[in-house]
Amino acid sequence: MINEECAALWDEMRARRPLVHCITNYVTANTVANGLLAAGASPVMADSPLDAVDITKKADSVLFNMGTFGKDRCRAMLTSGQEAGLTKKPVVLDPVGAGSTEYRLKNALYMLRQFRFAVIRGNASEIAALANAPSIAQRSEKGVDSAYVGTDGAKQLAKDASEKFSCAVSVTGKTDIVCKKDRLALVNNGVDMLSRVTGTGCLASGLTAALCAVGDNYIAAVTAVAAMGIAGELAAVNAKGTGSFYVNLLDALTVMDGSVILQKAKIEEI
Amino acid sequence: MINEECAALWDEMRARRPLVHCITNYVTANTVANGLLAAGASPVMADSPLDAVDITKKADSVLFNMGTFGKDRCRAMLTSGQEAGLTKKPVVLDPVGAGSTEYRLKNALYMLRQFRFAVIRGNASEIAALANAPSIAQRSEKGVDSAYVGTDGAKQLAKDASEKFSCAVSVTGKTDIVCKKDRLALVNNGVDMLSRVTGTGCLASGLTAALCAVGDNYIAAVTAVAAMGIAGELAAVNAKGTGSFYVNLLDALTVMDGSVILQKAKIEEI
Amino acid sequence: MINEECAALWDEMRARRPLVHCITNYVTANTVANGLLAAGASPVMADSPLDAVDITKKADSVLFNMGTFGKDRCRAMLTSGQEAGLTKKPVVLDPVGAGSTEYRLKNALYMLRQFRFAVIRGNASEIAALANAPSIAQRSEKGVDSAYVGTDGAKQLAKDASEKFSCAVSVTGKTDIVCKKDRLALVNNGVDMLSRVTGTGCLASGLTAALCAVGDNYIAAVTAVAAMGIAGELAAVNAKGTGSFYVNLLDALTVMDGSVILQKAKIEEI
Repeated sequence: MINEECAALWDEMRARRPLVHCITNYVTANTVANGLLAAGASPVMADSPLDAVDITKKADSVLFNMGTFGKDRCRAMLTSGQEAGLTKKPVVLDPVGAGSTEYRLKNALYMLRQFRFAVIRGNASEIAALANAPSIAQRSEKGVDSAYVGTDGAKQLAKDASEKFSCAVSVTGKTDIVCKKDRLALVNNGVDMLSRVTGTGCLASGLTAALCAVGDNYIAAVTAVAAMGIAGELAAVNAKGTGSFYVNLLDALTVMDGSVILQKAKIEEI
Repeated sequence: MINEECAALWDEMRARRPLVHCITNYVTANTVANGLLAAGASPVMADSPLDAVDITKKADSVLFNMGTFGKDRCRAMLTSGQEAGLTKKPVVLDPVGAGSTEYRLKNALYMLRQFRFAVIRGNASEIAALANAPSIAQRSEKGVDSAYVGTDGAKQLAKDASEKFSCAVSVTGKTDIVCKKDRLALVNNGVDMLSRVTGTGCLASGLTAALCAVGDNYIAAVTAVAAMGIAGELAAVNAKGTGSFYVNLLDALTVMDGSVILQKAKIEEI
Repeated sequence: MINEECAALWDEMRARRPLVHCITNYVTANTVANGLLAAGASPVMADSPLDAVDITKKADSVLFNMGTFGKDRCRAMLTSGQEAGLTKKPVVLDPVGAGSTEYRLKNALYMLRQFRFAVIRGNASEIAALANAPSIAQRSEKGVDSAYVGTDGAKQLAKDASEKFSCAVSVTGKTDIVCKKDRLALVNNGVDMLSRVTGTGCLASGLTAALCAVGDNYIAAVTAVAAMGIAGELAAVNAKGTGSFYVNLLDALTVMDGSVILQKAKIEEI
């Protein structure tokens, strides 16, 4: 049932090619752009506060990614978020490093008060920081690429954050958890090597934004992490290391259609 | 005849390894740098207004790419453009997104008034915005990666912009059009997948700048789009998706010499 | 003997997965992050002066890379360098382009006065600029990717700079030279194609920082350039161009363990 919803939404995204305005970090901007193009969406990366409004006006959805966060990017997000609110466009927040720095946490929380997001997607330490669960945040704090705190911890975090911020929340890790109101999904796709390539989390957020442009936010969030996990599984088959794994990942996204998601997604709703 | 001119210029560029000062966006900077290195040029990426002059002084040509445009990058372009003018170095303008935001359009037009460019390279919507052909610009406006408005429309745009700005103009799309004064070329190389990888347009502009450093601007612009198109055709042969396509593209540029261009370029001059 | 020290340090780094705070340029940030992840370290890229201290606090070592240097990145380095000094964390300086622009040279020298670095890694023109050997710097100045000035010149530079700045100095080129006090190593691994891919030097600096986090700075610097060279040799075997070479390079780093370094490193200590 949920597999079918996800497969349909994926195909819908590929058919409609939504334009996603990405305000994102420079480390993985190339990966997010290429991943969105491979999957069938249309990215536009622009982070100046001076043209954020123009770009958001034309976009179908918006991504705020807080990697390499700084003053200009912050102003661009505030401007874009206001425009997106006026024109009812879904905005996805990826609070990269919110568990690591006061500056990012403070600004993430400020944006969460100012705007209603469609989805927040992060690892457990990031979501824990936002949801004010400091003990979990500290336990899982070693850089931005390792944040697994156990499935039960992540489930509680997703629930707490979803309630606190009134939006869908996607906590990624070994098992990905997506929660919105009374729906909660566990997604068990993926391989370890996904955490050895920079930007796979950022791309999951980008795909979430693309999918939000064409359908329900909760299904979008589930579909995005399932698609990334499946692409990772397919990519791992002939990978000789992280270089070929990344190439295979983009190849897998290029040819992935709904039937692949229908067949391979390991989603459990509880 | 034109194929021979292009082939000779390409080999000249590979022999002389021109240093290209790229003031460009962070999304595709890596792609442009790696593409230029693969093709045999020598890129230097630097976008601080505080050292733009020093770098331009050492460079053989300059690239201004307006993706992720902002205040600092703008100031770097203004400083570098002045230095390039004094030292007669060719500057290529890639007005990324000039059809999408007032801010970029205004600044692109300002630079076009201040400086004499060697070549402007963009998609139809970008060139239409500069040439003040708003109806075409609006028709083709969906993100920065889809701008095809028909060969006849693009030909007229290239002519109008070339006359208006007194320089060579390269309008890329399904058919690439290059115009300067009384010469106009149609280049029919390329594959659809080139538009599914971010930065292929940016790289075409980078190659144009590298080729301008060693020869005629019009031939440089034609050669750059032909080389990109041919590399795309070669890359598509064994590509399983956009990941392997991009890898193949750099590989094709690495080994491409003039004989490949001589043989495979589909250039029609009218 | 030195091969064994390097092999042991490499394995130690892979076992301990040090967190490396990278303040680096946007052209190769993705390459440095993916290279560090492939090799087994844990990168965190953050360059805002507003959170540099928080990130440095959590990190095991720090990388300052001066590519695409500018005001904000400069302030972030000054803030981070102070914190690293207080908490005794090793900092590696990669003075990209210090031989090309007054602005970068001035700031590199300022930081060298303010902070005690663990290692400086650059090409000959960059180190020559810092060590005030202007004739060598000028001879080798063509962009940031070509800086070889002969093994004897590089040896002298490494010695001079090591004495002047009281730290290990790594001068990379056809032969890589590492010097600290009375130890000097020549590393003869590597292939020409490493200079045809952007960011291989930046990654060598990143690996140096990762290795400094777990062991002696001099051995770290030697190990980093040996590992990069070996990875390049392995990557070249089936490369069809720079695209596949880069993929192979990351693959080689992913699977490389100490035994590979023990067997393949061509290090001569004099």
